[in-house]
Amino acid sequence: MRVKLIVEYDGTNYAGWQRQTNGFSVQEALERAFENASGEHIVIHGAGRTDAGVHAMAQVAHLNTQCSIPAEKICFAMNMYLPADIRVRNSEKADDGFHARFCAKGKHYRYTIYNAMHAPAIHRNTAAHLRGALDINAMREAAEYVVGTHDFACFCASGSEVKDTVRTVYSLDIIQDEPFIQLDIKGSGFLYHMVRIIAGTLIEIGQKKRPPLSMKDIIASKNRERAGVTAPAKGLMMVAVYYD
Amino acid sequence: MRVKLIVEYDGTNYAGWQRQTNGFSVQEALERAFENASGEHIVIHGAGRTDAGVHAMAQVAHLNTQCSIPAEKICFAMNMYLPADIRVRNSEKADDGFHARFCAKGKHYRYTIYNAMHAPAIHRNTAAHLRGALDINAMREAAEYVVGTHDFACFCASGSEVKDTVRTVYSLDIIQDEPFIQLDIKGSGFLYHMVRIIAGTLIEIGQKKRPPLSMKDIIASKNRERAGVTAPAKGLMMVAVYYD
Repeated sequence: MRVKLIVEYDGTNYAGWQRQTNGFSVQEALERAFENASGEHIVIHGAGRTDAGVHAMAQVAHLNTQCSIPAEKICFAMNMYLPADIRVRNSEKADDGFHARFCAKGKHYRYTIYNAMHAPAIHRNTAAHLRGALDINAMREAAEYVVGTHDFACFCASGSEVKDTVRTVYSLDIIQDEPFIQLDIKGSGFLYHMVRIIAGTLIEIGQKKRPPLSMKDIIASKNRERAGVTAPAKGLMMVAVYYD
Repeated sequence: MRVKLIVEYDGTNYAGWQRQTNGFSVQEALERAFENASGEHIVIHGAGRTDAGVHAMAQVAHLNTQCSIPAEKICFAMNMYLPADIRVRNSEKADDGFHARFCAKGKHYRYTIYNAMHAPAIHRNTAAHLRGALDINAMREAAEYVVGTHDFACFCASGSEVKDTVRTVYSLDIIQDEPFIQLDIKGSGFLYHMVRIIAGTLIEIGQKKRPPLSMKDIIASKNRERAGVTAPAKGLMMVAVYYD
């Protein structure tokens, strides 16, 4: 039986989604919880490999199991063994052909900036603190150049082995709710660090270090060095994954 | 010089606001930070003594100092020594007669319920998890009986030594933003555990364990045993303190 999971996590205490040797990952925490609940050692595949410190409201994952726990009860069984900063929000039977990553048609990410003189206490792990005024209109103007189908090589972290860097960004909305500024981005898929580099570039435009039009030139250049810095991981949240 | 502070904190890791022998309090953390910054050992007085696990967006406090740090720079100096879950958001010179607690004319608290099948991961420390549907209209109807000037002895935790239990609740709004339900309450002042007992009683009304009209009877009874349970501390946030 193939099972689809919807997973929420606070990524602060994890070395990212993907299982690795030098740190405890969300994937490993989920696999351990499933093994504790079912006795079965399986691999859990996620829709996106979020970095260390990145959060998810609804990461999607799948697993194959022969256990006798009904699919819709697996979330309850796993939550009994998971740490409190990871919760399986839903589990259900999926088609055998369902693959959390390869079947994904799009994703929604949110980058949260806390724009105030002092860092936040309550939101210290879920927003990037930034002092000084930001020109929201300039950021919105620049955001329009990001929307559409482009070769986004300029927003792909060096070291990535992806060959095809063309992606479609469906929307990039900038929502101000003082002292928070949220960058909401939806697209067909995202390159390694793409959302964080877009956030870093938009922040520099908001700070008037670059004009809005520079976004167009950066994308056309296909050159990572032309874009802004990679914004901190803790501001990033995977909000949703879309399927047909 | 008397200085007024506005303090934000995540109360999860503290034994409440007030200095005590068996745990580290927010007050003690602030006093230590001030001593590290200025060399002066002083007492910091808060507007309200929040319980262990209760949070504040804008607790107000005051202190007296002879240090040479300008009042408006004290927040920066203290933040250098404070743990990341406490931030002084503002500091300014106050009149010598200003007292954070005795001059307060009112307070605004928010109680946050996370109403879903599974507990939240990201909001695990800042919302009380509750399964099962709540009748929001019944809760709103009951909330109307709370608004006004009443003897709120029914909502005062036993063990409190307060003599006068008459308080004025200016407003009690119930805001639904699924899966969150926020109880926003503003009043002249609040008895010990008053907001958490009101939240617990409203939850029982939302669960149809009591009718909305029972709120009127509970208040009239002046009997703590007639009211609902004390809702968990982590759902409570001090939002603002009002002064003339």
